Amino acid sequence: MDFTMNLAVSTPPKRADKTADGTADGSDAAALMHEIGGGAKAAARALALANTAQKNSALAAMAAAIRGRKEEILAANALDLAEAKAAGATSAFLDRLALDERRIAAMADGLEVVRALADPVGEVTERWTRPNGMTIERVRVPLGVIGIIYESRPNVTADAAALCLKSGNAAILRGGSESYRSNAAIHAALADGLRAGNLPEASLTLVPTRDRAAVGMMLAGLDGTIDVIVPRGGKSLVARVQAEARVPVFAHLEGICHVYVDKAADPAMAKTIVLNAKMRRTGVCGAAETLLVDRAAAANQLKSLVTMLLDAGCEVRGDAATRAVDARVKPASEDDWSTEYLDAVIAAKVVDGVDDAIRHIERYGSHHTDSIVTQDEATAEKFLREVDSAIVLHNASTQFADGGEFGFGAEIGIATGRFHARGPVGLDQLTSFKYRIHGTGQIRP
Amino acid sequence: MDFTMNLAVSTPPKRADKTADGTADGSDAAALMHEIGGGAKAAARALALANTAQKNSALAAMAAAIRGRKEEILAANALDLAEAKAAGATSAFLDRLALDERRIAAMADGLEVVRALADPVGEVTERWTRPNGMTIERVRVPLGVIGIIYESRPNVTADAAALCLKSGNAAILRGGSESYRSNAAIHAALADGLRAGNLPEASLTLVPTRDRAAVGMMLAGLDGTIDVIVPRGGKSLVARVQAEARVPVFAHLEGICHVYVDKAADPAMAKTIVLNAKMRRTGVCGAAETLLVDRAAAANQLKSLVTMLLDAGCEVRGDAATRAVDARVKPASEDDWSTEYLDAVIAAKVVDGVDDAIRHIERYGSHHTDSIVTQDEATAEKFLREVDSAIVLHNASTQFADGGEFGFGAEIGIATGRFHARGPVGLDQLTSFKYRIHGTGQIRP
Repeated sequence: MDFTMNLAVSTPPKRADKTADGTADGSDAAALMHEIGGGAKAAARALALANTAQKNSALAAMAAAIRGRKEEILAANALDLAEAKAAGATSAFLDRLALDERRIAAMADGLEVVRALADPVGEVTERWTRPNGMTIERVRVPLGVIGIIYESRPNVTADAAALCLKSGNAAILRGGSESYRSNAAIHAALADGLRAGNLPEASLTLVPTRDRAAVGMMLAGLDGTIDVIVPRGGKSLVARVQAEARVPVFAHLEGICHVYVDKAADPAMAKTIVLNAKMRRTGVCGAAETLLVDRAAAANQLKSLVTMLLDAGCEVRGDAATRAVDARVKPASEDDWSTEYLDAVIAAKVVDGVDDAIRHIERYGSHHTDSIVTQDEATAEKFLREVDSAIVLHNASTQFADGGEFGFGAEIGIATGRFHARGPVGLDQLTSFKYRIHGTGQIRP
Repeated sequence: MDFTMNLAVSTPPKRADKTADGTADGSDAAALMHEIGGGAKAAARALALANTAQKNSALAAMAAAIRGRKEEILAANALDLAEAKAAGATSAFLDRLALDERRIAAMADGLEVVRALADPVGEVTERWTRPNGMTIERVRVPLGVIGIIYESRPNVTADAAALCLKSGNAAILRGGSESYRSNAAIHAALADGLRAGNLPEASLTLVPTRDRAAVGMMLAGLDGTIDVIVPRGGKSLVARVQAEARVPVFAHLEGICHVYVDKAADPAMAKTIVLNAKMRRTGVCGAAETLLVDRAAAANQLKSLVTMLLDAGCEVRGDAATRAVDARVKPASEDDWSTEYLDAVIAAKVVDGVDDAIRHIERYGSHHTDSIVTQDEATAEKFLREVDSAIVLHNASTQFADGGEFGFGAEIGIATGRFHARGPVGLDQLTSFKYRIHGTGQIRP
């Protein structure tokens, strides 16, 4: 994940008055959230039955409105930035919060990308005929109401809205307090699009309060109206959501991804994959955090892998065997095996073959994405079978852990849970299904 | 559902001592359950990697052991029955609890049926190649540890165990206190089978305590070791599980199933389907509980449908229009539209076409199984699209709501949730998946 701010930390002090910028007191917030939940539930029913053309015309109108309201959005963002600066926000935080012409254009383009994707709703994913002549179809239907809880990046408002809308789900968006005005300006543009598509405004609600109690109500399911929560933000936000949510959550807490270089690895391929998995982008959840090298490969591959990483500017924290190949390697502590650095740092260890590598990954990993480099098909097969992660790769970089790279077009995040959605969560994963049965008068004997 | 006993009601008073029949005090129970959770988690890993032959040989040995230990099982059951009788159990309750040679043979046969089903684990359900040459496969893997909480019927011990084992999941079984000895005798036979298949005994644990606190611990996820809970029993058990569980639950609370007879229905087909949907078996969750008749069909179909039901011994509770066709029809109250009778009783109402029928079903139904009888394809399509239930049928009886009738071979229950499993929960629905990616050195640009 790119985000490191904690929702709790980033929320300004609660105010007792109700103001134009959306602050409300606790009881007001409860009544307001109750109303939002009911509205979203009703809108979800309409959205589930909306046809593809309607949803696409709304998405096109949303993109146009984002472009058309660019000045408003930038003005709102400037106020958010000024407030955050005055509150002493870090430059990394301000960068996540800041919008410019390029970022606004990217939001509009993202809406068009989702518009161009196939509509999953109504897709028949299985069909079979029973001996009595009945035909059973498994058909995709929307999930219902999706609650999105996110932090400073205002683009999530548009990105998440697009995926929810295209998959026929209503969305309740609760963005970071520090991006409140930016989100509201973006939401106003999206609402233009809903009207243009003749879809209910409650299809997409931005929680109009900075009251932190709203998050707790969403995690409790908002009177049974929220079907799933998707958190978008740093580890502390995701941890809070996973701990407190009473409804399903699509998320991953961290990506402690491994690359295992087997004795039968092609040395050149191993170097290319390790460098890419760690260094292409260090802040993404699919970045490798631990390098495991087969003891039988250590003699002729460990030194070149480690030197390559160090020369590329990556700090290496290694076990004794790894430290022995280069004096620049720092000692790894027990904690390093379970740390998601999200930075140019890697833990490195020599293991006794694929079984030991699998044991290490199962013990310290986060069931996100893990890769083996080997020319031995049987060893690869063993690794792919026994490593219990959402994504397992053979001879490819862990940085492919991304809905776009899977061909999903766009994703709302990566899930490491075992239910419903696992790995990248794209449009298909935002749907449920029902069984549709066609008979000719069949009764059960 | 066939079950009506409440777990709370059917549990005998807690004892403070620890006895041979599995009663333990609260702190003992906590330590014991903690150990059971850890053991199941470790066994799940072994089971996930067990091959089909191993699982099948265990299932065959289980069936043989159930047959071989028949006398022991009957003797244990006799003790349970005597205790239940002494406690004043109803005859319906005693019937659910009672085993005989036929029921024991059915358990053994059930194990053989599951043995013969295809192993879902390892099945590749999707495969595609990316422009960069990487192949992505979506492969079925087990869910992990399944907690089964059930009531008086001892056969659930064997039936649930078989489905969990074949799908590579460990199971923690918590049966009704009143069937404790019967379950333990059946479990002993199943453990024989696990040994014969060289699978860990912790693959299948019967909670060896009648302490009710064990249920609460399971609903809390047993220290993160339980991945999903499947309740098997009456409405109050399912309601408690749904309200308290902190892990996913595969269940339905009730089946308020509708048959809508449209103006374009074939009258003879409508009669056949309505009679079968209501009267074939009245105690199953797929039994129809409400008949909706299109006002445009009432003139020539309502009287014959109602008379047929009354003549078949079914009580009919109707609205004014229905009462007008036969003096034997009793008045329906508002509650009747949302009552699951599980008996020879049906609520009946005249509605204004398919839209009104859909509105009624969405307002009062339980999103389980609903059927339309019509010769008009467009009307059928509208109904199948707009009724938001796990199973929607056109010109077929609601009593087909059953994993066996879907061709799943066996099921552990029917789910009305929207996540992961919806409708009959068979072997496939007891699996998760992972993405397996084969590359040739691909890195991400």
